[in-house]
Amino acid sequence: MSDLFPDRLLAAIAKKGSPICVGIDPIYELLPDAVLPGARNPDDAEGAVDAIFKFTTAVLKLVAPHVPIVKFQSAYFEKYLWEGVEAYYSLVQEAKELGLLVIGDVKRGDIGSTSGAYASAHLADPQFDEMDDVVTPDAITINPMLGLDTLEPFIKAAKDYDKGLFVLVRTSNPGSAELQDVKLADGRTWSEALADKLAPLAADKALVGDSGFSALGAVVGATQTSQIDSLRQRLPKSIFLLPGYGTQGATADMTRAAFKNGQGAIVSASRSILYAHRDKKHADKSDWQSAVLAAVEEMKADLAPIVR
Amino acid sequence: MSDLFPDRLLAAIAKKGSPICVGIDPIYELLPDAVLPGARNPDDAEGAVDAIFKFTTAVLKLVAPHVPIVKFQSAYFEKYLWEGVEAYYSLVQEAKELGLLVIGDVKRGDIGSTSGAYASAHLADPQFDEMDDVVTPDAITINPMLGLDTLEPFIKAAKDYDKGLFVLVRTSNPGSAELQDVKLADGRTWSEALADKLAPLAADKALVGDSGFSALGAVVGATQTSQIDSLRQRLPKSIFLLPGYGTQGATADMTRAAFKNGQGAIVSASRSILYAHRDKKHADKSDWQSAVLAAVEEMKADLAPIVR
Repeated sequence: MSDLFPDRLLAAIAKKGSPICVGIDPIYELLPDAVLPGARNPDDAEGAVDAIFKFTTAVLKLVAPHVPIVKFQSAYFEKYLWEGVEAYYSLVQEAKELGLLVIGDVKRGDIGSTSGAYASAHLADPQFDEMDDVVTPDAITINPMLGLDTLEPFIKAAKDYDKGLFVLVRTSNPGSAELQDVKLADGRTWSEALADKLAPLAADKALVGDSGFSALGAVVGATQTSQIDSLRQRLPKSIFLLPGYGTQGATADMTRAAFKNGQGAIVSASRSILYAHRDKKHADKSDWQSAVLAAVEEMKADLAPIVR
Repeated sequence: MSDLFPDRLLAAIAKKGSPICVGIDPIYELLPDAVLPGARNPDDAEGAVDAIFKFTTAVLKLVAPHVPIVKFQSAYFEKYLWEGVEAYYSLVQEAKELGLLVIGDVKRGDIGSTSGAYASAHLADPQFDEMDDVVTPDAITINPMLGLDTLEPFIKAAKDYDKGLFVLVRTSNPGSAELQDVKLADGRTWSEALADKLAPLAADKALVGDSGFSALGAVVGATQTSQIDSLRQRLPKSIFLLPGYGTQGATADMTRAAFKNGQGAIVSASRSILYAHRDKKHADKSDWQSAVLAAVEEMKADLAPIVR
């Protein structure tokens, strides 16, 4: 298998035996009391970032033996301004040192020259003398609304650095249908038309690995059962990142149409794993760590029939 | 006039006598030699950020007497990781202290709870003890692709903190037509359908100022002459932020349809002002500062017939 992102991802899925992507959405207010040095104080940014760092590092160590990939939600780091951004890059590095693949869920997108700057920040390996140990994620999510030309700098960076992209195609949230499911004059939905435009880009030989999958993947909400089948057919080479499992209501069975012979998709879950200690289902666990592991094990078992 | 963002913006436009928005796209490679301490070294992040800081501060002082508002492009700061993000917030503060209104061109957008974290980072006034002097922009750009429900946390923050939003409706880049101009089954373009969904949100009484304009504005490329008229009719209360003037080819005359009796729009220009010293038209100027001022004066004169 090659060093291209899709091949690295498929190898990691095979090694860990599951297509789970743990979403790292560190929300200070939801952290277990055990990771806090004292009373919760949301006005203490440094304390909050320290607690988030401690919690996330512990979560990464817990899940690394069991899952191939994690997804960091940029917004929860940006909330703590530059302190949060520094923690984001440190934690991306921690995750990679633990052998995890990492997605930066940044949903960036802008006109071409500006997308190039975003690609430098989030996908290229920075070459700065003072920050030469900084590593960026293996893949990022990007927003294509501005047009396919705006993806080019991201695609170039993906090629230059063996990275991956997950383009938003059909999201998992309740209101997503309003703009993504609208019917075009030719009968396709807007998301289907987008998928048809992405397919030739994903088929670029420089992006397709030995596995037959491309470094240009797609975000397709696991909640969108009526659309997954159609989008899978339109994007045969794209790995699907499926958010919406668990807290947002999607079941393992709902993800089935995104897989091709059990391959080519990853299923993301954030809060149902990170904050499992808050779920009464896990009230019998002795600590939050046991609840996290139980939630991962449960999800793994739940998805097993799909990927078998 | 109220303290709402649209009223503050209209008052500033009246005071400065022009609807110019200077786009702060600080690109190290394009900075004038005069702001560099020595040879250009793109691997020296600290040096690059210092030069960007020095240049941007000088630009802000030059333009503050002449324009009402500036727009910081987040990507060019994120490129320098957390160092760049810290400079971004410092420069937002510098601009506000000079009496300028500030737009953060961040183009964020995500599912609801995550949009809330982005709104905290980019629009709310942070309440952190250690960073209590941090100020956020007066308005930000947001990406609505995920659905109208995802705008709610941003709208709430706009109400809570008297801030503004510019929602991407029809962008200025060449490839934007592919996804934004597609015809729906009902005959509208995708952007027109989006505008029709935004209009009732923009008409929310809590967002509309004494001027009749709303804190919920729209980004409409000045290059999109065939669409501006239709979008203006669909979004009568929204202030339009018009990128694309100058380097991207839009003329003053092309912006005319975005204005209502000379009001309700701002015209953004970035490189044609910031890097005017590189334009042979300004080769006669003795320094880069004179070139910046000449470019602002020229743009002001060019737009004068539109806003008169």
